Amino acid sequence: MKNSTRGSVDPFIVMDVMEAARAAEEAGRHIIHMEVGQPGTPAPKGARAALAKAMTDDALGYTVALGLPALRQRIAKLYKEWYGLDLDPARVVVTSGSSGAFLLAFTALFDAGDKVALGAPGYPSYRQILKSLSLTPVEVQTKAENRLQPVPSELEGLDWQGLLVASPANPTGTMLGFDALKELIDCAQARNAAFISDEIYHGIEYEAKAVTALQVSDDVCVINSFSKYFSMTGWRVGWMVVPDAQVRQIERLAQNMFICSPHASQIAALAALDDTDELEANMDVYRKNRALMLEGLPKAGFTKIAPPDGAFYVYADVSDLTDDSRAFAAEILEKAGVAVTPGLDFDRERGAQTLRFSYARGTADIEEGLSRLKAFMEQRG
Amino acid sequence: MKNSTRGSVDPFIVMDVMEAARAAEEAGRHIIHMEVGQPGTPAPKGARAALAKAMTDDALGYTVALGLPALRQRIAKLYKEWYGLDLDPARVVVTSGSSGAFLLAFTALFDAGDKVALGAPGYPSYRQILKSLSLTPVEVQTKAENRLQPVPSELEGLDWQGLLVASPANPTGTMLGFDALKELIDCAQARNAAFISDEIYHGIEYEAKAVTALQVSDDVCVINSFSKYFSMTGWRVGWMVVPDAQVRQIERLAQNMFICSPHASQIAALAALDDTDELEANMDVYRKNRALMLEGLPKAGFTKIAPPDGAFYVYADVSDLTDDSRAFAAEILEKAGVAVTPGLDFDRERGAQTLRFSYARGTADIEEGLSRLKAFMEQRG
Repeated sequence: MKNSTRGSVDPFIVMDVMEAARAAEEAGRHIIHMEVGQPGTPAPKGARAALAKAMTDDALGYTVALGLPALRQRIAKLYKEWYGLDLDPARVVVTSGSSGAFLLAFTALFDAGDKVALGAPGYPSYRQILKSLSLTPVEVQTKAENRLQPVPSELEGLDWQGLLVASPANPTGTMLGFDALKELIDCAQARNAAFISDEIYHGIEYEAKAVTALQVSDDVCVINSFSKYFSMTGWRVGWMVVPDAQVRQIERLAQNMFICSPHASQIAALAALDDTDELEANMDVYRKNRALMLEGLPKAGFTKIAPPDGAFYVYADVSDLTDDSRAFAAEILEKAGVAVTPGLDFDRERGAQTLRFSYARGTADIEEGLSRLKAFMEQRG
Repeated sequence: MKNSTRGSVDPFIVMDVMEAARAAEEAGRHIIHMEVGQPGTPAPKGARAALAKAMTDDALGYTVALGLPALRQRIAKLYKEWYGLDLDPARVVVTSGSSGAFLLAFTALFDAGDKVALGAPGYPSYRQILKSLSLTPVEVQTKAENRLQPVPSELEGLDWQGLLVASPANPTGTMLGFDALKELIDCAQARNAAFISDEIYHGIEYEAKAVTALQVSDDVCVINSFSKYFSMTGWRVGWMVVPDAQVRQIERLAQNMFICSPHASQIAALAALDDTDELEANMDVYRKNRALMLEGLPKAGFTKIAPPDGAFYVYADVSDLTDDSRAFAAEILEKAGVAVTPGLDFDRERGAQTLRFSYARGTADIEEGLSRLKAFMEQRG
């Protein structure tokens, strides 16, 4: 059997770091994980208790394709709590993580050959999922003065049928304010293009509340997940909010492509939505970690960083230190015992001069990691 | 935003039946569910216990994309237990149900515009997933004398780059023996086409053990799941076995398209593989139900049926009773209080004259359903 062309997507460069970290740990070394894109905390206690109960009471067969009605209603209520919006639960689609949401959105909105604009640096799977669905990513090299978010002037001359943005973004943690988001949505709507807003890091924000694209327009596709703020990565449950006109198309696709999202995860997610105390305690850790990073990274010699608005990453410009981020990350792992992500996964052009540091783990790990980085950089000179 | 063309897949006709059944139950009627494609039993006890324990011990974050190594090894061992095969665990890919496996297989093997041959009647989502990925299903109208399975002579003159078969098949329950399977695999390999074998109903077989495509050739893509024999539909966990040459391509796609299969479900699945006593007790129920169906359906007037080799369906030719299976199913629901599936979902050409009866539920339900069907048919005359 032959492999397809569209299926030959790029490898994740961070996987080499993770494999090297695993091998080092197997050999007895202690490694601090600043490469991870997930919380170290489990799903909240209430979520796990709800599932433990359901496992004794319920056969947990297929749910309907759009998700448990109670979960769709509770997600709609979250939009009232977080943004003051009245959202019709009929527009909420429960998905198999944000990954499942991207597969559904891209399939529902685009035909083979369509072009989708997005900014670099960005989450690498955007590009790869688009390619695997025979769609073409149109990458815009975002500018530092725009805090590495795309702006309409960069998009206007290009050919595209969809625009995908993320706020807070991975790897930068920068957010789009209401006006910036509105300008991008207007830019897409002016050409009848689809607008997709990745809001997976909403809830993990520091100085200001993140703006949802739904505050600007109903004619957008919003993607979110229980993975980050709700600390449920491995459960593979997320959601989309789509315009009325897309619900039926997405329902039919979901019936066929997924049947349903994991029932057990939906039960846990429903309870997680009310576990505010535990989730806010997680946030206290991220806040503390962020302050430590913003103080400790410059002291260690990583001076070209910007305070992230949200998420749990610091994206560092290391052009004064290397032009081979992959080799530099390998050196940091070997000599400092700290795993970090080379920027090449996020930005194939400029990522050779950037690193992403995650502060998603416990504070003790962050303190130890920063101290190791400082010692390593002093020795490196 | 506009809907895509490829995303406008056919609706499931059985959904109308299910919605009507739900409404009838809400209005206080008692309905027997012979339309369902899933066991009424939960995941085996050991599976649920393993997850309950893991929820207290483990953060259940992302797993690696190909699945928990212990689960891949245990699945490989299943091929020794079931078929006497030595299978390298490196060729086993854990997926988000067989649905996720189809998305991965089709993306890894086919480019937009490729044609995939398959038999009608068949599982409707094959066609719809192919369409959603810009692939073209090439349907062969299978013959009763071939027990509604495709044969090479029907395929040889057609243009296709992949061949998809199912054994035991949904909706017919018929199986392909070693020789029939080998002829189809040879037919695909002779033209360098991909061969995909849906083996989701393996384990649920009656007169003879099902043959896996891996007994014939290593150059095939086998898809299976924990949904049916292992009674874990809602958990969304399945697997593929692929040739060495496809593993790396599928791993990269899985990293991007899914990140991983649900971690909790993988834990439960691993334990389910050793819950043989409970699973064989479920099989005793299916065996008993099958015998009841084969005796009771003809007595009720559904005489044109064949004994299924596997799965938990009887596919009835009702051409002597109707040429509108949709209306007939609605009539059966209304007058007999039994929900059944009209054949149109499985075979758009001939399905107006077929019905699928599921016997996946408890024996008491099957007895009551058959008695209602008999009374209804006697009254109908």
